Amino acid sequence: MDFSSKLLENAVNEIARLPGIGKRTALRLALHLLKQPKDATQFLTKALTEFRDEVKYCSSCFNISDTELCEICSNSKRNPEIICVVEDVRDVMAIESTLQFKGLYHVLGGKISPIEGVGPQNLQIDSLVEKVASGQVKEVIFALSSTMEGDTTNFYIFKQIEKYNISTSTIARGIAVGDELEYADEITLGRSILNRIPFEQSLKG
Amino acid sequence: MDFSSKLLENAVNEIARLPGIGKRTALRLALHLLKQPKDATQFLTKALTEFRDEVKYCSSCFNISDTELCEICSNSKRNPEIICVVEDVRDVMAIESTLQFKGLYHVLGGKISPIEGVGPQNLQIDSLVEKVASGQVKEVIFALSSTMEGDTTNFYIFKQIEKYNISTSTIARGIAVGDELEYADEITLGRSILNRIPFEQSLKG
Repeated sequence: MDFSSKLLENAVNEIARLPGIGKRTALRLALHLLKQPKDATQFLTKALTEFRDEVKYCSSCFNISDTELCEICSNSKRNPEIICVVEDVRDVMAIESTLQFKGLYHVLGGKISPIEGVGPQNLQIDSLVEKVASGQVKEVIFALSSTMEGDTTNFYIFKQIEKYNISTSTIARGIAVGDELEYADEITLGRSILNRIPFEQSLKG
Repeated sequence: MDFSSKLLENAVNEIARLPGIGKRTALRLALHLLKQPKDATQFLTKALTEFRDEVKYCSSCFNISDTELCEICSNSKRNPEIICVVEDVRDVMAIESTLQFKGLYHVLGGKISPIEGVGPQNLQIDSLVEKVASGQVKEVIFALSSTMEGDTTNFYIFKQIEKYNISTSTIARGIAVGDELEYADEITLGRSILNRIPFEQSLKG
């Protein structure tokens, strides 16, 4: 792409560094900002700068939080004996929106991924093991996505905490509610048969 | 969406104001910036702010330009007697990349669109008419997209400049090179038959 202006080119290149945004989309976004009042760009850049510079993490679960202890960790109605291990804040939001979980979270901040240079030391794994070692935890639920990296991370953590004799579980894999059997992949379908549950129990959901 | 942090919520809301970006994508982009060094966010916000605050337009064709007169308008090898009328900088870039046009451009900055509140006075139409009235122009090529708004804008401009007895043309509509006839819409196919060209001429393209 040949740009008629360095300022425009620079803006497009910086926007196009964001994941999933190509040069054409970046150009469209830059021209959109140009049609809006200058305020719009100021609000956007101010929000991004403040977020990046001032973001804080909960000292207990490491979720993004504006306070030292996040709202979930500081809620006395939640059960601190059950810890759900997730990758990032999006997973916390997804599980919270189900209203089905009353324990606390532990946000790892990613998954073990040698290809992307993410090792256990880059994640909040030690802090989780400490939490378990302190004796306050009775159950750890693994809720990472079931990819190679997710399974590796689960297994790494499991190996570190199994000696503490607490119960561990992973979220159920199976056919999504409302999905047709014929379109399910065979691994998922196979697991959903192996891990079948008593019919009476399925009525409670 | 329930956010665990006002800073995060604010950043996501501002990103999601951009066209074609929903809240989920905005959240993904915000978390991406969080994983990058602070520099990445600084470069992005600086580029956007500088672009929005310091953008300048060519005083002749009104394309985005860093100089008073843009590179195309100040190029003495280009023919100032042929003016190609386009909507915005993206169209200039698209036509320039064909290497087929040696005249100058006139960037309107949009199309007449009553629904979006864009009237002729919001576009660079008067300056185009002045250019034609000055006698320096021999041909005006309309290269707006062939939508209702584009056709309206073309016609509005045509009515203003027809008295100056210059030649006017629009870019050819027809079947795209490499496309199959059977998938073309009937209006395009119909126009491509009506506006057929001598076979020898087609060999030159």
